[in-house]
Amino acid sequence: MTDAIPPAPPQPTRDELVAALRTRYGTDDVTPFDAVTPTILHQLRHRSVRRFSDRPVTEDELRAILTAAQAASTSSNQTSWSVIVVRDQAHKEELKPLIGDQTFIDKAPVLLFWVVDLHRFHLLADRAGVPAAATELLEATLVGFVDAALAAQNAAVAAESLGLGITYIGGARNHPEETAASLGLPPNAAVAFGMTLGWPSPTDRARIRPRPAPAMVVHHERYDDARMLPELDAFATRTNAFFAAYGRDFDWVAYITDHFRDYHDLHGRERLREALTALGLPSR
Amino acid sequence: MTDAIPPAPPQPTRDELVAALRTRYGTDDVTPFDAVTPTILHQLRHRSVRRFSDRPVTEDELRAILTAAQAASTSSNQTSWSVIVVRDQAHKEELKPLIGDQTFIDKAPVLLFWVVDLHRFHLLADRAGVPAAATELLEATLVGFVDAALAAQNAAVAAESLGLGITYIGGARNHPEETAASLGLPPNAAVAFGMTLGWPSPTDRARIRPRPAPAMVVHHERYDDARMLPELDAFATRTNAFFAAYGRDFDWVAYITDHFRDYHDLHGRERLREALTALGLPSR
Repeated sequence: MTDAIPPAPPQPTRDELVAALRTRYGTDDVTPFDAVTPTILHQLRHRSVRRFSDRPVTEDELRAILTAAQAASTSSNQTSWSVIVVRDQAHKEELKPLIGDQTFIDKAPVLLFWVVDLHRFHLLADRAGVPAAATELLEATLVGFVDAALAAQNAAVAAESLGLGITYIGGARNHPEETAASLGLPPNAAVAFGMTLGWPSPTDRARIRPRPAPAMVVHHERYDDARMLPELDAFATRTNAFFAAYGRDFDWVAYITDHFRDYHDLHGRERLREALTALGLPSR
Repeated sequence: MTDAIPPAPPQPTRDELVAALRTRYGTDDVTPFDAVTPTILHQLRHRSVRRFSDRPVTEDELRAILTAAQAASTSSNQTSWSVIVVRDQAHKEELKPLIGDQTFIDKAPVLLFWVVDLHRFHLLADRAGVPAAATELLEATLVGFVDAALAAQNAAVAAESLGLGITYIGGARNHPEETAASLGLPPNAAVAFGMTLGWPSPTDRARIRPRPAPAMVVHHERYDDARMLPELDAFATRTNAFFAAYGRDFDWVAYITDHFRDYHDLHGRERLREALTALGLPSR
């Protein structure tokens, strides 16, 4: 073992769990549980890290994280995903304006691009001289996105268990054709989303963002819509208070209604279906 | 802490890691890493559990698992997912033929249905008297699938850290309208996939399935297609050997070419786009 690996974490105490839940939900009104493990406490403490220290991400660490990614479930044993590791600074700077242009992107030691990859099925079909018609379906595209997401979340959990931090980059769908070209993707493949990876800076101020009360997202036997509007308003109150503590005037309900009312807030993603079609993922 | 919670796992030994990697990749030719944590060892040992003991899944355990699910990242702080917990035996039996009819489905103590949920955005838009046009896009559907998958994979990791087992059920997309009706989903929502949850039976024989060599899925800076066909054949060899050890004659390459050549192996999922449209997720 190298010095980089922390000792195995102990079983969380009740106080640690309650503190993590209060931060996670943005309220003191939480219900702790007995079934807690060190892994679950890590998961509860997830936050998106956008400021990195100078400490490099070693190849050893990256291999551990991507092996964990590979261990995730994959639909029907098909492996409809790939990942592209970007470390080269010039490459990061080329990609940055394509994927949302956020200032932290080219400061991350590693960018990971999680790819919907149906290319391999075409290679095998071409060799066998048969069509690969089912890759053209929305089902195939969605399986690729789900496979990529399961792998990526395993990578995120593994990275955080080592002490590293991650942030997902949905902006990697802003310019799908140009991003695919920059990563040399073959036909029938597209970036699902990106991810930054690095050791958190000691000056990183990112806090844990509050989540909705379980009643908003967890239903028993049937979807229960009866109290959904008050739950949404309660979540907005917690979220707005979170941003107010940063001095930021934010209104979550106004943000949602503004974001979804038309296509003005999508940065190119309104044409995602057209772009995926151009990349050989027609999603019929 | 109850008796149900195992003590915190120790730091994995080198021998444990090497054994886990050999099983995970289906070969003795593995490269271990120093950056291992108890969480990563758990992840490497993932297997799909389809045979359950009589031990119930408590509400306390379920709350822990779904709190971990909520802690996963969510795109733009929107929470485009929900989860439906099914425990009622008659309800499980009603759902079983809709979601693939596999024999283990109604034997699982808990079924979880991970839902793409854009309904809440419509509730807020309707109250504000504005449209929610951006929910009609493929981008919105895909964000929902990704959000649901990140949450589900956190739930899977949390469950396995407690000693429980899971299996994803892609068959939950076979009959989207009927499945949505059985779960009482509102408009603008659909099941992304299901999951069984339970304590593994002592007689469960499920082994860890081999994954492709990293060279097949991990690329550096640019996608490297040069050795993809031999890598695919090497993965097929490992996978076929895995099934041969069960006495099952399986040919992974033939399975892939047969599965994708037309729509005969999709069990209704060839009409997923039509079904999602009917459910208010037109995925334009």
